[in-house]
Amino acid sequence: MKALLIVAHGSRRAASNDEVRALTEIVAERAGDSYDKVSCAFLELADPLIPAAVEGLIQAGADDVTVVPYFLSAGRHVVEDIPAQVAKVNVPAGTRVHIAPYVGGSVSSMADLLLAQADRNSC
Amino acid sequence: MKALLIVAHGSRRAASNDEVRALTEIVAERAGDSYDKVSCAFLELADPLIPAAVEGLIQAGADDVTVVPYFLSAGRHVVEDIPAQVAKVNVPAGTRVHIAPYVGGSVSSMADLLLAQADRNSC
Repeated sequence: MKALLIVAHGSRRAASNDEVRALTEIVAERAGDSYDKVSCAFLELADPLIPAAVEGLIQAGADDVTVVPYFLSAGRHVVEDIPAQVAKVNVPAGTRVHIAPYVGGSVSSMADLLLAQADRNSC
Repeated sequence: MKALLIVAHGSRRAASNDEVRALTEIVAERAGDSYDKVSCAFLELADPLIPAAVEGLIQAGADDVTVVPYFLSAGRHVVEDIPAQVAKVNVPAGTRVHIAPYVGGSVSSMADLLLAQADRNSC
């Protein structure tokens, strides 16, 4: 069973966390056959936290978990904190938990997206 | 003269600010005839700050400045802080400074991007 875990920073502002949850639902709809389960977790300030989320996926039967950091820059959170949280999980033999590149690392897509946003109706 | 200003949070980590500057160069290359000038600014912690950047663009001849927030969620920074910084600028008559939607607001594109990152070689 393949699972995708979108990891965001987490905010004291509930609406920001809900934005991540809504985005996760859209990713789940689009994942098709690529992932059996798509969920989200937070580095801090909101639930679920990363270790609990990964453990929950494994307990639900996932043997292949891809963690995607929803961050714009390769700062300490991406380079150190997320791997450290993932490393807290006791991963059983035969199960793979890996961390994909952070979204901001897709510079080409981000450049296109910035231009597209600039062209949208501005406020 | 049309200008595009990409606004990021700014970081104490120079490499994160340099990521934004490199992204800005790619946007500039791709802007084609849409924008005469593409530059970046930071909400805090790095230079240039937003008011100085907008004023610099106007002094350089821009009469239409689009500010695009390079942020993932519609938190306080996007909703309050960036508009407040833009509002500090004394905009001359005939010049328009407007704020485009933040990149994270493009949920559909972000969903596709998360799936694409998940499919890339993981580390």
